[in-house]
Amino acid sequence: MTNTQVTLIQIDNYGPWTVTPEPRREVDLQTLQSRLYADLSQLFGNREGYVFFSRFDNMIAVTNGLDADDHALIQESVANRYPVTVSLGIEADASPAAALGTASTQLQEAGSAQDAARTEILRGDPIPEPARTGEDVQIAHFDVNDATGKYTDQLNEFDSFIRIEQGYASLMQHMRKAHEALSFFVGGDNVIAICPAMDEEDYREAIDHVREDVEVELKVGVGRARTAQAAGMDAKHALETCRHEETAVEFRTQ
Amino acid sequence: MTNTQVTLIQIDNYGPWTVTPEPRREVDLQTLQSRLYADLSQLFGNREGYVFFSRFDNMIAVTNGLDADDHALIQESVANRYPVTVSLGIEADASPAAALGTASTQLQEAGSAQDAARTEILRGDPIPEPARTGEDVQIAHFDVNDATGKYTDQLNEFDSFIRIEQGYASLMQHMRKAHEALSFFVGGDNVIAICPAMDEEDYREAIDHVREDVEVELKVGVGRARTAQAAGMDAKHALETCRHEETAVEFRTQ
Amino acid sequence: MTNTQVTLIQIDNYGPWTVTPEPRREVDLQTLQSRLYADLSQLFGNREGYVFFSRFDNMIAVTNGLDADDHALIQESVANRYPVTVSLGIEADASPAAALGTASTQLQEAGSAQDAARTEILRGDPIPEPARTGEDVQIAHFDVNDATGKYTDQLNEFDSFIRIEQGYASLMQHMRKAHEALSFFVGGDNVIAICPAMDEEDYREAIDHVREDVEVELKVGVGRARTAQAAGMDAKHALETCRHEETAVEFRTQ
Amino acid sequence: MTNTQVTLIQIDNYGPWTVTPEPRREVDLQTLQSRLYADLSQLFGNREGYVFFSRFDNMIAVTNGLDADDHALIQESVANRYPVTVSLGIEADASPAAALGTASTQLQEAGSAQDAARTEILRGDPIPEPARTGEDVQIAHFDVNDATGKYTDQLNEFDSFIRIEQGYASLMQHMRKAHEALSFFVGGDNVIAICPAMDEEDYREAIDHVREDVEVELKVGVGRARTAQAAGMDAKHALETCRHEETAVEFRTQ
Repeated sequence: MTNTQVTLIQIDNYGPWTVTPEPRREVDLQTLQSRLYADLSQLFGNREGYVFFSRFDNMIAVTNGLDADDHALIQESVANRYPVTVSLGIEADASPAAALGTASTQLQEAGSAQDAARTEILRGDPIPEPARTGEDVQIAHFDVNDATGKYTDQLNEFDSFIRIEQGYASLMQHMRKAHEALSFFVGGDNVIAICPAMDEEDYREAIDHVREDVEVELKVGVGRARTAQAAGMDAKHALETCRHEETAVEFRTQ
Repeated sequence: MTNTQVTLIQIDNYGPWTVTPEPRREVDLQTLQSRLYADLSQLFGNREGYVFFSRFDNMIAVTNGLDADDHALIQESVANRYPVTVSLGIEADASPAAALGTASTQLQEAGSAQDAARTEILRGDPIPEPARTGEDVQIAHFDVNDATGKYTDQLNEFDSFIRIEQGYASLMQHMRKAHEALSFFVGGDNVIAICPAMDEEDYREAIDHVREDVEVELKVGVGRARTAQAAGMDAKHALETCRHEETAVEFRTQ
Repeated sequence: MTNTQVTLIQIDNYGPWTVTPEPRREVDLQTLQSRLYADLSQLFGNREGYVFFSRFDNMIAVTNGLDADDHALIQESVANRYPVTVSLGIEADASPAAALGTASTQLQEAGSAQDAARTEILRGDPIPEPARTGEDVQIAHFDVNDATGKYTDQLNEFDSFIRIEQGYASLMQHMRKAHEALSFFVGGDNVIAICPAMDEEDYREAIDHVREDVEVELKVGVGRARTAQAAGMDAKHALETCRHEETAVEFRTQ
Repeated sequence: MTNTQVTLIQIDNYGPWTVTPEPRREVDLQTLQSRLYADLSQLFGNREGYVFFSRFDNMIAVTNGLDADDHALIQESVANRYPVTVSLGIEADASPAAALGTASTQLQEAGSAQDAARTEILRGDPIPEPARTGEDVQIAHFDVNDATGKYTDQLNEFDSFIRIEQGYASLMQHMRKAHEALSFFVGGDNVIAICPAMDEEDYREAIDHVREDVEVELKVGVGRARTAQAAGMDAKHALETCRHEETAVEFRTQ
């Protein structure tokens, strides 16, 4: 069984800030958002976690192995470097979606995301060290078969992008509904999903679903480990095996 | 009539680089991609352009006012700071999709995006200064009505994200097919579209389409100017007018 | 005659901020300072200016070609991305030190650098466009002869560093007193000086002074142009000529 | 007794890279250097270490608590994000200068810093975990008494800077010769020194020396701990005590 620790990262009162006193320059907002994401990637990543940019003002992290102090330090480090602050909700569950649900509720109960008085909330229950296992995190790394040959080198770049987006939208919904998994586009033709204990058949069905739904052909490597980083790296190696063996689903565990 | 100058930015041979000699750590790739995007935002933004991250390995910019030398300097600046290089294709057209189509073809003709020997290509035809007008760029800035109240403060963050993504997927396809416009998610509940000369009725139809298709309620501010930055800032101000007046479509021109 | 436009960049109320409510983590301060400097390098650099980090909380820029609007935009861009703001004082003079003196006075008259109420000051007089000439900026790029062979590959790194620092301290004081030039260490064994209209003999004397004072052997390339960037690039090329010709002083002008 | 673990960080073949095929733009070099330093600050800092920029192409870190694997991961992370690579030499000693001396020798023996074939060297002996103690690292944080009132708000910024630099140059040499300590300017009017087991009298003498030598008045807070970060934070708190109590030397230990 998995036990995924999920952290919801919410920029405090961000919407109002972007238009106060008047709309801020878009290039500066884009710079701020993408750098904050890059920094969080490093801050969580240096502690074996993964962060996904999702909506940028709300980001989702897999944080098995990080305790409340680690989260507090990351929160402080953001405040020391940015004009905005972040609130953090933490929860673990066999179902990634359920974990994120509770993490979301914790922040919602502390006040609205656009309440200027609700800042730097830190709530939740990291997994105690003795309760952690080597099967807590299951990560699946999907990509599109021959995306460069079929799309990038053939289509208008925007039409390539639409194809990739359609594949992602179809996959994210299937994985959410059928498995309570959380799937994130991570650039190129890659999607990384935070999964419960899914088996090979489940992944084949997901790939079939996307092919039938939007005619995008995926393959997937799956890793399982104590932390997001270890599971994610296994998933990448498994995906390389798919590439070399021309298979659709590969697992690799430590 | 619009005359949008579009630049396709393609990281050279990026896919193979990410797995050579073996898969690179995901947190470093995420950091690299989002920082490169932040830097391009500033490099183009300091010259009145806009860049969208789209797939990150392929980014799309609106570059009215930037000539070939400006592009060459940006290309050099990336090579001076990153372990990867970029190729650039430039084209202008009344149809943003057509401009991007030609820009894409220019790079495709120079070789595959995954050809190690095809690096730092710079091709295309910036608009000569005398041919530029104050109506060259039309930018529409969409957001979701009360996204914080309806989604962020109510739903599981991932389900909020799915709602936003559905709205985006529906909008991007409608705008592409009906108007040859290019629409990009830019964080939060915001989408920025690079449009041809669309009128108020066109935008109302787009909003209606998304409501009927996926039950997401949008509003939009539209700006028109000589450069992306000026048009984009007008669009933001127009969107603020929508917010205050509770209207669905507002134009603001200089 | 030169006419160097100098901008003093001062982080507002920075000292108190670093220890309020209690001392902030040094790694975050170092990250903040060096990134702010990197961003200013790009913001001024994209407009043909040069910035030197000097004390980091006070930075000095050569800004020929930037008007008040350019400065205001840079100021806004910093506020949009950092937890601190900056004040700017601008002045031009044949003497770089005199220009900086007036720029300093402008900020001092607006209030103390540690007055919480004195923020985002922008004062001064950029050179009007018609008054600019191709000889406004003279930049000298010094380095140490065979620093790698004599120091880096031979000495304890700290002792190499002490040697370089001694050379820099001697040069900066001589150039300031004898010529009202402003000299900045820029990494490695390199010093860049913002100079008035000095001639070859003046540079030979400076090199002789440093050799006699602290036994460090320098060479120098000098450029003169309308902007810092053009003069600085000429200086670099001139320094390459010194290297190949084994000469001590070279000029290159456009 | 202290046992400071020092890491020398050397950018591989950096000098030649900066002028190949011709001199690279200074603003890009400055951006590269200061960002690389910021990243190393975070990479070492997230593991309780401190990094000093010193010459930027050669940086010096205090790394108690980081083993060879931590160093390898940092080295890999730099290669994944920058156009340059770094070599690392590690050594611990009661004398910080002796530790750095051995670390320097390790890299020098592997080849010249400007040898294109000598890249990503990792050599040295981190302290084994059982040998570590709570007194391994002694850090002193100096600043100038009333630098803002006496210098920043009174003098031309460059003359303030010369005063601070003189204080630093005098202190760094005294601390090196009298105590084998390594002192680094860290911005503003702050110097952080990596010290052997010095006592209060030693620090009083250092302050007296600088006052007599260059008429700059310092105070100092000293911390001692298992890691650089803990010792450094103690030093900052001790310096705050100096400020409030108007004393010249304060110790704080955990």
